[in-house]
Amino acid sequence: MKIHNGIWKLSFGTPESIVPSKQRYVKSPDSEAIEKLPSHEQAPFEFNKIRFSASARGSRLEIPLAQGEDIYGFGLQLKSICHTGKKRCLRVNSDPVTDTGDSHAPAPLYFSTAGYGILVDTARYASFYCGGNKALNPEAAGESGKTSIALDESELYAGKGGVPAPMLIDIPAAQGIDIYVFSGQNMLEAVRRYVLFCGGGALPPEWGLGVWYRTCGTHTQKEVTKMAEDLRSAGIPCDVLGLEPGWQSKAYSCSLDWSKERFPEPEKMTESMIKQGYHVNLWEHVFIHPSSPIYKDLADKSGDFEVWNGLVPDLSIKDAASKFSSYHAKALLKKGISSFKLDECDNSDFITSPWSFPECSKFPSGADGEQMHSMLGLLYQEAIEDACRSQGIRSYGSVRSSHVFAAPQPYVLYSDLYEHKDFIRGLVNCGFSAMLWTPELRHAASKEDYIRRLQAMLLSPQMLLNIWSMPNPPWMQLNKELNRAGQFLPEDEQKELLKYTKEILELRMSFIPYLYSAFADYHFDGIPPFRALVMDYPDVQELRKIDYAWMAGSSLLVVPFTAGTKEITMPLPPGLWHDFHTGSRHEGSITIKSELDKVPIFVKDNSIIPFADASRFVTNGMKYKLTLRTYGKHPEAARLYADDGFSLHSGKKPEFRGTVDKDGRLSGKLDRRYEIKEIMKF
Amino acid sequence: MKIHNGIWKLSFGTPESIVPSKQRYVKSPDSEAIEKLPSHEQAPFEFNKIRFSASARGSRLEIPLAQGEDIYGFGLQLKSICHTGKKRCLRVNSDPVTDTGDSHAPAPLYFSTAGYGILVDTARYASFYCGGNKALNPEAAGESGKTSIALDESELYAGKGGVPAPMLIDIPAAQGIDIYVFSGQNMLEAVRRYVLFCGGGALPPEWGLGVWYRTCGTHTQKEVTKMAEDLRSAGIPCDVLGLEPGWQSKAYSCSLDWSKERFPEPEKMTESMIKQGYHVNLWEHVFIHPSSPIYKDLADKSGDFEVWNGLVPDLSIKDAASKFSSYHAKALLKKGISSFKLDECDNSDFITSPWSFPECSKFPSGADGEQMHSMLGLLYQEAIEDACRSQGIRSYGSVRSSHVFAAPQPYVLYSDLYEHKDFIRGLVNCGFSAMLWTPELRHAASKEDYIRRLQAMLLSPQMLLNIWSMPNPPWMQLNKELNRAGQFLPEDEQKELLKYTKEILELRMSFIPYLYSAFADYHFDGIPPFRALVMDYPDVQELRKIDYAWMAGSSLLVVPFTAGTKEITMPLPPGLWHDFHTGSRHEGSITIKSELDKVPIFVKDNSIIPFADASRFVTNGMKYKLTLRTYGKHPEAARLYADDGFSLHSGKKPEFRGTVDKDGRLSGKLDRRYEIKEIMKF
Repeated sequence: MKIHNGIWKLSFGTPESIVPSKQRYVKSPDSEAIEKLPSHEQAPFEFNKIRFSASARGSRLEIPLAQGEDIYGFGLQLKSICHTGKKRCLRVNSDPVTDTGDSHAPAPLYFSTAGYGILVDTARYASFYCGGNKALNPEAAGESGKTSIALDESELYAGKGGVPAPMLIDIPAAQGIDIYVFSGQNMLEAVRRYVLFCGGGALPPEWGLGVWYRTCGTHTQKEVTKMAEDLRSAGIPCDVLGLEPGWQSKAYSCSLDWSKERFPEPEKMTESMIKQGYHVNLWEHVFIHPSSPIYKDLADKSGDFEVWNGLVPDLSIKDAASKFSSYHAKALLKKGISSFKLDECDNSDFITSPWSFPECSKFPSGADGEQMHSMLGLLYQEAIEDACRSQGIRSYGSVRSSHVFAAPQPYVLYSDLYEHKDFIRGLVNCGFSAMLWTPELRHAASKEDYIRRLQAMLLSPQMLLNIWSMPNPPWMQLNKELNRAGQFLPEDEQKELLKYTKEILELRMSFIPYLYSAFADYHFDGIPPFRALVMDYPDVQELRKIDYAWMAGSSLLVVPFTAGTKEITMPLPPGLWHDFHTGSRHEGSITIKSELDKVPIFVKDNSIIPFADASRFVTNGMKYKLTLRTYGKHPEAARLYADDGFSLHSGKKPEFRGTVDKDGRLSGKLDRRYEIKEIMKF
Repeated sequence: MKIHNGIWKLSFGTPESIVPSKQRYVKSPDSEAIEKLPSHEQAPFEFNKIRFSASARGSRLEIPLAQGEDIYGFGLQLKSICHTGKKRCLRVNSDPVTDTGDSHAPAPLYFSTAGYGILVDTARYASFYCGGNKALNPEAAGESGKTSIALDESELYAGKGGVPAPMLIDIPAAQGIDIYVFSGQNMLEAVRRYVLFCGGGALPPEWGLGVWYRTCGTHTQKEVTKMAEDLRSAGIPCDVLGLEPGWQSKAYSCSLDWSKERFPEPEKMTESMIKQGYHVNLWEHVFIHPSSPIYKDLADKSGDFEVWNGLVPDLSIKDAASKFSSYHAKALLKKGISSFKLDECDNSDFITSPWSFPECSKFPSGADGEQMHSMLGLLYQEAIEDACRSQGIRSYGSVRSSHVFAAPQPYVLYSDLYEHKDFIRGLVNCGFSAMLWTPELRHAASKEDYIRRLQAMLLSPQMLLNIWSMPNPPWMQLNKELNRAGQFLPEDEQKELLKYTKEILELRMSFIPYLYSAFADYHFDGIPPFRALVMDYPDVQELRKIDYAWMAGSSLLVVPFTAGTKEITMPLPPGLWHDFHTGSRHEGSITIKSELDKVPIFVKDNSIIPFADASRFVTNGMKYKLTLRTYGKHPEAARLYADDGFSLHSGKKPEFRGTVDKDGRLSGKLDRRYEIKEIMKF
């Protein structure tokens, strides 16, 4: 059944009652924006070729794939980008170390290079066999089969290439399933339909796009206050200070109440932070300690297993969610807190003493543990967002789990894993599922590693220095153990690191108008701000497996280096590309040599990049001084967005969208937020 | 319901119709032997405290655990030995790289140090939460919870120790479940009840305990024949030659028919092998190529997905199994083949192009792919065993998957993984599930690695040089690539390796009577021949996590070294232990220094080890010349078994069991197979 322009809902069997599409976090589709997309009458493939069956173990769907289609998506995937031929099992799992589909934030959602996407409306740990499994057909059985003898396991089990087999979807428990099909003239248009179907992408406050610094877990009020002052006096750009578990009287599980010992005067501290231009973010998780003020209220609205001696509230129940929200509103947001870091709402991996609730847990809403694990990240985000909305706060936070329908939530994913290439791949992949992820910095193995990790965040959803495990800033000592022991680097090395740090963070601040505009495109038009190259160029075969470079906004292609890489040879997408820094022109294949102080960025021909004077932090409704960097012979006007940048009510206001052209002309109401300082031609 | 002395069957809800206990491979319990075990009237814990519930996603069982209980088992587990506090998810998976429970050969079966075991009769990928998850109980909620602040993920997620929570079992799809409880005065007795309930342990032919050499995958008839001659002329002990996929006209999938090109005269070759004292083993898997003589017969009795273009026969159907068996009998066993290597009957891991059939496959018996993956290893073993039985052959083979009820099957597990410590841990663990596993040698990183890998097999189920990926013997070149390129080690190094090889293989041959007797104990009395120390000493806390040493037979404790280990400090079990080689005495904690040419073996006080003159290969009914190595002041008579050692009819014959005492007196009919050459006192 067609439900919107280019969006179909197909039902098979008797679907479960507890599914993602029915949850509290699902917003109304942005029907208006969907209708504005090119009209799509025709289904992207023959729906009557889909086969469905159900058994006691669940539902099975076979969806035809055509030769040459490649498959992307499935939420946050750190280990691979192209899933064609593979099996993806979407278990919620905090630390997946192999390429199995397991993830902090899996999504039963994929997009094909053929220009369509499919959302499978299930909170089950579904498995997707992406075209590797052929049905038995003895009549058509041929003589193929290996006759050459392999001497390596990798040879034995090598793929055959091509996609002769269907997408096979295995959904546990369900006796039926709804799927949503999103079509498009190309892959990006299909993704946009999905984002707009979710209600549009998140629009963070501008301060959320500034620099984040999470303070050490053991730090007291005094130490946090000193860190805030030190960062300002050192001239380090910083918009958000994050407090780790130590702010609470009990953590693991959480009291959600200030520690009187460590933080005797939280309001005074928060006030002083705000005065210095900071926003304060608090760490927490959803497992509620018996000493918490809300424990008793939630006790009868919780799952039947404890986590770290705390209860697990059933946030799919309105009453539980609103108790949880209103506490956050009154006790924390009202007192100056701006955002939260929502930890451990994914699921335990398979370590000794698994810490999360079992998949066979029972919740009062009727959800079981498996369903709750899939949905908890979003239920949690929505409960906190509810609190923020009640206080008129436009927030931006961190979260460790998510799922389908995440697009409108202003939360950035993170992980305890740390392999840098995986972190970058996560960023490249997340756009397919309209999730945000940042390759955060926690510590570093070397100066090069440190700089590369900072650089990789330059054009990412969040510039996050997550220094929770070190009492001193990383530029004093990169090594965790030595940092804790107070053994610092030689002064000249500290100075050098500080210099690099400031340079990168200032560069980030300069990109805020550009990034904010990319988020406005996400919000209004459903265009993910960070996209794999294949999403913009699905027909260019050589780009289909590129998992180390991405498009940021409309015009920038980023290729960050990781430590140890000396050069990168890669195909550029079709057309002319300009080096962001020097303006040199490139086309076709390019070899980039490593330069420690530079993130390779390429600008699409005929683009204008608005580049602001770097400030130390963002203030509400501040005016940006822009240098327009124009590239190519006929630079096209660039979009900008000029709401106030922070308040909730100013969110989706088309009247504040506008463009700036190559001569510096600002359209509409853009001049309330921007002034042109200089035009540089490359 | 009590069904045997010390064995209970408990039923909950409405169990599925397709479960392990109803499969073709399940043998009658050895009721007589079970009755001879100490009488057990009392249940090992209060059965009425077990809680059961069912939902659309499956069944949930909670079984109480007492403080101090530790949990072992779950089939072949390479990554950990003690599972207390952990979550084990028993997915069949060829290459699990983390400690999740996934395995080639998972078993829904565990044993507790409290002296009981539980078999959960399911072919589902059940999850076991081994005591780490506490039920929510707001009334009893205390003030506990962390207040000290951790700075490391490992600290954050550290276990709390102790077992306050129940064993929680999550069984997908099933609306009910049967469990079997095995009690004992101790852990070993509980394991014995399980083995005897399965019909008793496997009794391999004596030749199966000799040396195995698998020839290179690309080798032709001529090359295999030459290898057989070379081994004999070099004086290398060898009983079994294994042929890899190349013997078939098509492999991947399998034609199960000789390649006329590579093996023009298979019968002539086999005959010449047999004349030289070899047994011939053939590699195969269960996926049948369209060109196979049995493809058409099986086409309508197969799963609905292909694997490598081949069909997957439903061997749970009698007609399919007997077609499969009778082909093996007529075409291969009748013509001199003695055993098979059954590959890839586990399941694909999550590599590119997963190769096995999906879990949602449908089989004509009504089994789905998940159930079939759990049972395929045993269905396959049983089909091949059927063929062997029809030819009066007592066989011993290799297999890549197994499950509960495996005890009577004469098959040794193996894996494509290769981490040596994991391989050793697998051997230590397998006894709990009455499975056999050997840490095979394929190639080596160094001389030390090579020798250590050979040594670790000395007192294992199988001495297997699996040289399928190298055309030349490992002692000519350990490195795969160089071996293939024909680049050999310097002659003196080759000589040295050959010397070590012969020494270890000859030592293995000398242990055959001792090992064969251990297998007879398995066969008659249900005592696993290879056991974790905790199985024999469950009350000694320090032994509960030892995953690098094991008991082989009644009296030997083996502590093999791995490459790079300089010394091992470990607690010995209570009592006096003698160094096997020198007779030196040890008690309590011991530090063993690495010696390249020695496997540390300790002999239990007052034991007699029958040690044979090493032969190059075993002949049917041959007579062993024994040196009796006696240890301690009052050596107790040692058991020996003296059937003919190879034929099927001579299998379970109590009249051939006997003992040899410290003065060399052989009881009963032992003298038909053994003569005492010497008595050595240590």
